[in-house]
Amino acid sequence: MLRKVAIIGPGLLGASLALGLRRADLAETVHVWARRPDAADEVMKNNVADRANTQLAPVVEHAEVVIFCTPMGAMAELARQALPHLHPETLVTDVASVKGPVEAFMAPLFKNHALWIGSHPMAGSEKAGLHAARPNLFAGATCLLTPTASTAPAAIARARAFWQDLGAHCFELDPDRHDQAVAQISHLPHLLAALLVRSVQTDALPFAGPGFRDTTRVAAGPAPMWTEILMENRHAVLQCLGTMSGQLDRAIHLLESRDEKGLHDLLAQANDVRQSLSFPDPRA
Amino acid sequence: MLRKVAIIGPGLLGASLALGLRRADLAETVHVWARRPDAADEVMKNNVADRANTQLAPVVEHAEVVIFCTPMGAMAELARQALPHLHPETLVTDVASVKGPVEAFMAPLFKNHALWIGSHPMAGSEKAGLHAARPNLFAGATCLLTPTASTAPAAIARARAFWQDLGAHCFELDPDRHDQAVAQISHLPHLLAALLVRSVQTDALPFAGPGFRDTTRVAAGPAPMWTEILMENRHAVLQCLGTMSGQLDRAIHLLESRDEKGLHDLLAQANDVRQSLSFPDPRA
Repeated sequence: MLRKVAIIGPGLLGASLALGLRRADLAETVHVWARRPDAADEVMKNNVADRANTQLAPVVEHAEVVIFCTPMGAMAELARQALPHLHPETLVTDVASVKGPVEAFMAPLFKNHALWIGSHPMAGSEKAGLHAARPNLFAGATCLLTPTASTAPAAIARARAFWQDLGAHCFELDPDRHDQAVAQISHLPHLLAALLVRSVQTDALPFAGPGFRDTTRVAAGPAPMWTEILMENRHAVLQCLGTMSGQLDRAIHLLESRDEKGLHDLLAQANDVRQSLSFPDPRA
Repeated sequence: MLRKVAIIGPGLLGASLALGLRRADLAETVHVWARRPDAADEVMKNNVADRANTQLAPVVEHAEVVIFCTPMGAMAELARQALPHLHPETLVTDVASVKGPVEAFMAPLFKNHALWIGSHPMAGSEKAGLHAARPNLFAGATCLLTPTASTAPAAIARARAFWQDLGAHCFELDPDRHDQAVAQISHLPHLLAALLVRSVQTDALPFAGPGFRDTTRVAAGPAPMWTEILMENRHAVLQCLGTMSGQLDRAIHLLESRDEKGLHDLLAQANDVRQSLSFPDPRA
């Protein structure tokens, strides 16, 4: 059991982490840092953590694990403030969706001062904030760990154990490869869902059914968070958009030339790939 | 209560119709036509209908309602074969996803020979065939009726009652407007889901999570059926693809120029629209 865990930021992921750690008795005490006093009050009122504070030092000192769960834009400054209060054996990680930029400022900062490794638990939803939090958010989820050549083996092992105890399945990927992969399976799908919603004329919307509901669900996610993700990962996302643009041109060509066989083959191949994928039961 | 209903084609929609009519006691007898003897056997073995036959005449004669549930490509020939066995008061409809081409051959054919009106119950799924059928498939679903100036008022009223008795909510749209609307809310989303699946590199697929699962679910639908739908509705789909292509260019421009505000506004607008939509509970 961990003695003390510090969670920086009580959003969907931070609050779910706090709830999950306490529900599974994984930590003796869970402290949460929140920027605003009313957010800290909400944490306590909803019994999300043992302590909540707008001061960073009392939250992180003596913590065995510190997890940054704020927007990426706030992370560097908070990490700098936390640094003097950490122990070289403190495990420091985060939950950001883009790892290259986070790694670039966190790794040099924590070098010799704490055990740093990036994490990306893929367990968001289109809902945001503390009130959408739930203790089992990470159960069955994939968590991508992003060690580099300079990551301490102990950081990898402890981060893996931490997420696995919460029910997540861990994989390791270097930060750049991670960013390319999530651009394809998460960031591009999100952006496309938004473009799809925008491309429908108002008078057609009332007829939208289950297909439209599912293909566009993620477009209901918080715009500020997704703006940050897409901008931080813009190089990989732009590469995906280029690929998609080519795919779109191909589909246009097949329809214009009435190439039934070509269209069938395209759909059949997508079909094969999609049917080969398995996902945990969404109702579980 | 209807005396006899004839269902042409025991696929997902046809078999679900048969099951739904019988479950709700809406018809005294439900007859199904199937092209292949083994498909007719399956209908009877699974107690989907009262009778199943590979001959069309005994299925349609004396039927008060005839519903064509085959692929569009098979419909014209079957309609011609059915014609001599119909009564001027027989309600004839279909379940095709594209209405312009169906209207173009069905309306002149049945003029003065039966009460024709096109229907499009939006209740498919990525699963296909008799074994995916269920009696409540149409409960809560949207059914688009596509009358024209020459449709008999009795055809509209009876088709509306027919689908409403199965639990569907009916709307009326002329066939061309229908095809433009479903191109936007169904056909484009389907094609994009397929392109999205194809755009992901194999080594990124294992990390796909709930967002990818939902945005691409429809890509698991049957390729032959979707090839036909997209080809039959290619003019409207091409228009949507053109719109989407412009949207994609806009997103590329915003990311390349690091226009955070522009990207945020785009996502926020999609967000507003998406959150304004409501769908029946998928678990109901």
